[in-house]
Amino acid sequence: MKPDPRSTHFNAAGEVHMVDVTGKDITVRQAVASARIRMSADAAESIRRGDAKKGDVLAVARLAGIAGAKWTSHLIPLCHAIPIEAVSIDFDWVEESESDDAAAACQTLRCTATARTTGKTGIEMESLTAASTAALTVYDMLKSVDRAMVIAQVRLESKSGGKSGDFRRGTGEQA
Amino acid sequence: MKPDPRSTHFNAAGEVHMVDVTGKDITVRQAVASARIRMSADAAESIRRGDAKKGDVLAVARLAGIAGAKWTSHLIPLCHAIPIEAVSIDFDWVEESESDDAAAACQTLRCTATARTTGKTGIEMESLTAASTAALTVYDMLKSVDRAMVIAQVRLESKSGGKSGDFRRGTGEQA
Amino acid sequence: MKPDPRSTHFNAAGEVHMVDVTGKDITVRQAVASARIRMSADAAESIRRGDAKKGDVLAVARLAGIAGAKWTSHLIPLCHAIPIEAVSIDFDWVEESESDDAAAACQTLRCTATARTTGKTGIEMESLTAASTAALTVYDMLKSVDRAMVIAQVRLESKSGGKSGDFRRGTGEQA
Amino acid sequence: MKPDPRSTHFNAAGEVHMVDVTGKDITVRQAVASARIRMSADAAESIRRGDAKKGDVLAVARLAGIAGAKWTSHLIPLCHAIPIEAVSIDFDWVEESESDDAAAACQTLRCTATARTTGKTGIEMESLTAASTAALTVYDMLKSVDRAMVIAQVRLESKSGGKSGDFRRGTGEQA
Amino acid sequence: MKPDPRSTHFNAAGEVHMVDVTGKDITVRQAVASARIRMSADAAESIRRGDAKKGDVLAVARLAGIAGAKWTSHLIPLCHAIPIEAVSIDFDWVEESESDDAAAACQTLRCTATARTTGKTGIEMESLTAASTAALTVYDMLKSVDRAMVIAQVRLESKSGGKSGDFRRGTGEQA
Amino acid sequence: MKPDPRSTHFNAAGEVHMVDVTGKDITVRQAVASARIRMSADAAESIRRGDAKKGDVLAVARLAGIAGAKWTSHLIPLCHAIPIEAVSIDFDWVEESESDDAAAACQTLRCTATARTTGKTGIEMESLTAASTAALTVYDMLKSVDRAMVIAQVRLESKSGGKSGDFRRGTGEQA
Repeated sequence: MKPDPRSTHFNAAGEVHMVDVTGKDITVRQAVASARIRMSADAAESIRRGDAKKGDVLAVARLAGIAGAKWTSHLIPLCHAIPIEAVSIDFDWVEESESDDAAAACQTLRCTATARTTGKTGIEMESLTAASTAALTVYDMLKSVDRAMVIAQVRLESKSGGKSGDFRRGTGEQA
Repeated sequence: MKPDPRSTHFNAAGEVHMVDVTGKDITVRQAVASARIRMSADAAESIRRGDAKKGDVLAVARLAGIAGAKWTSHLIPLCHAIPIEAVSIDFDWVEESESDDAAAACQTLRCTATARTTGKTGIEMESLTAASTAALTVYDMLKSVDRAMVIAQVRLESKSGGKSGDFRRGTGEQA
Repeated sequence: MKPDPRSTHFNAAGEVHMVDVTGKDITVRQAVASARIRMSADAAESIRRGDAKKGDVLAVARLAGIAGAKWTSHLIPLCHAIPIEAVSIDFDWVEESESDDAAAACQTLRCTATARTTGKTGIEMESLTAASTAALTVYDMLKSVDRAMVIAQVRLESKSGGKSGDFRRGTGEQA
Repeated sequence: MKPDPRSTHFNAAGEVHMVDVTGKDITVRQAVASARIRMSADAAESIRRGDAKKGDVLAVARLAGIAGAKWTSHLIPLCHAIPIEAVSIDFDWVEESESDDAAAACQTLRCTATARTTGKTGIEMESLTAASTAALTVYDMLKSVDRAMVIAQVRLESKSGGKSGDFRRGTGEQA
Repeated sequence: MKPDPRSTHFNAAGEVHMVDVTGKDITVRQAVASARIRMSADAAESIRRGDAKKGDVLAVARLAGIAGAKWTSHLIPLCHAIPIEAVSIDFDWVEESESDDAAAACQTLRCTATARTTGKTGIEMESLTAASTAALTVYDMLKSVDRAMVIAQVRLESKSGGKSGDFRRGTGEQA
Repeated sequence: MKPDPRSTHFNAAGEVHMVDVTGKDITVRQAVASARIRMSADAAESIRRGDAKKGDVLAVARLAGIAGAKWTSHLIPLCHAIPIEAVSIDFDWVEESESDDAAAACQTLRCTATARTTGKTGIEMESLTAASTAALTVYDMLKSVDRAMVIAQVRLESKSGGKSGDFRRGTGEQA
């Protein structure tokens, strides 16, 4: 059976390679990714308390997310190293209409990572890795309070720049 | 306001530090974490095709997960470096009873990371980072097929060893 | 001419090697290092403003210092990797009685890094690297305010544990 | 209270981000930084002996400095990775007119790091990290001879290129 | 005695530096390197068995080679970090006409690494490091089968692009 | 077909995992590896000239080899990180009785890397990676003199400690 021709990371023999981008145009590209962390009211309170300066969980997670973006090409095997020219990590609390009772009892923190490059390939993996690393750090900081905390979702929200076209996630999609 | 006394990463002044574990006992510890990836039937087909040897997405993700475990102490700011003595990454396809129609149309791949150490602190973050890195790699390998793919859940399944006691996730909890 | 026999990093031929510590005892060791940063009143005000939660320079530097400790064995060529079991980074403002007028106009922030291990070699380089990295980060965060800022001193304050004996810096020494 | 508007690493909310440089011009930039190491006559003699080929401390420190420059973007949290196109590390012995008697008994080695890039941001942090890492390595190589050795000063000497203008340290300033 | 003027990594004083490439042209460059691994018939059989999907040694080595290319600037002290825009790793079995009886009993696997960049310096070291890391990984995967396995040759096959001209290895040369 | 049961890096399904060593004994282990570099008389002269202090190629390669040993667990995918407690890198010139005329015209530098650990797994890969990285660095330092230089052999010379028994390479074997 043939490898899927649309997965560019494989050659015709089905072997991985780092895709040749020497001939691609250099353009400004941006990607936005998000991660959601569902936690107990107790853990959420612990974070909000940190907003008042003492024990700032989100400040630690924000720096971990930025550092995570810079490690992407060493973590994701076939990623190219690209010049990361901007990263920001934002947190907000979101409402979720969950049918699941257990989930409904939780509070949800959203982490949004935005990254930009001027390069030959997209910056989606950097923004996803940033969001994911920030979320893991929130878990690490609060696991003594709520070990059952769940990173409920990591996904690309939008991307722009580059030949493959823009992407913007629709409403209700794969939530 | 005081920092949450249960979050051991902060001192009394609310400042982060790497917790002193010099006095802790060395014991064998294990942690199991999982990540779920929801993808289109198309992307799932692409992975299953890889099972037949050509273009093996999961083989790449498995190695990325193992490498991710080894990077944990550099990715998670307050993590201690511990001797990682075993890591395995397993994949299976799971059924999900979703109320959400969009999600129901997806297929769900589960990645389970198991890590062991003989050390003074737990190995939860290593197993979570392994699962998370493997999931991000699946995304990277197939984003040209399904850019809307979602890492639907990253969570600790169980841990054992150490003074804080064992943890095993119950049924239906925070799914 | 012979290499200095007291510098253990060289063999009899004057070539570097990583010293063999297989036969050494495992003991608890601690090292405290400090760095001083002399800055304009303007830059000092910028840091103090951060204490009030907005733009917290020291929180960033503290995390950089902890991460720096973990990178030590890759930065210092002949360092052994040892299990870093505790790191804390503290900041305070110190008075300096400077004869130099230019220096007298400055304010001095002191960064103190304390690190502990249970291992076969000392942890001096980890505490020094932590203090140094934290100080460099303070510079980076405020270089747009005061590019002339100086890291005025990085030094070992004390060490304990291990066969070479304890060290405690005396008063007035090499300040 | 507002974050200091001149510290570009914070946004209006006082949260850190990696500054967006996508719109900045690519220019050749250079930065020179220095570190001074004050040591006992004994330690200084040990280095000079190395000049005669056996046990060459400065050769080790020079390579550590160059490697340190390459690690900068992973050590300094908000640093961009830039293409480092030249690094050189030079050592010389300097006279210091110290009022402090203890300091006067010391000999002072100066390490000067020069780095160049063709990029969108300055290369100050790379040259400072290079000088600092080289100085820490000198300490590591000779700590068995003189544990009280002090890195007496790490500072930017000059920078050129880029929109913020050139910088050249004056005489007698903040020594 | 003077340092060899053709070795650009040394300055006139014989001290290492990272060569200044700020003034060099940006061109597309390619380098091909190979490594040969001589192993027992038993180990060779183990690899061929992996071709049938179970226990795929070469898939692991291929990914290690690609990752190795990305680490080059941190492994080779005076290497510049360049944008690696393509890497592929290919394996084939080669016949060797060995006079040495012991060698003749072996089977030889060849690993060929091809890397491309658009940059100011060549990409030879990246392709050599990729081939070398892939070969070391083959050894690691099969050392329990054949500990005596030998990496019989690592060499540059060709390079193109850049001012120093193209290189193509002749026949029979330095085999 | 089944994976080779002797290759411990694969499980019964032929999937890679990091072997579980939690139950293994901690013992002192040593491994010696060598690499041979065949070069033109010109390049060899360039190295010997460095022995006289100016432009010391081998000093650079020695440090790269030690650093390479420390990076092993991140370069070789299934390697455990072990406490590296000693590394030394030695160089000597060797005579080779080559039937191949081209090879006969070359001079051969041998790099021998010795590494020790007190741990649960062997240190073969660390000594091989050290020898290999040192050899690649020799190539990098002299490629402007002799681009056709060949790393003619990388192999394990001996290992001791651990349950799998000692290994010592015989004479004439796989040269």
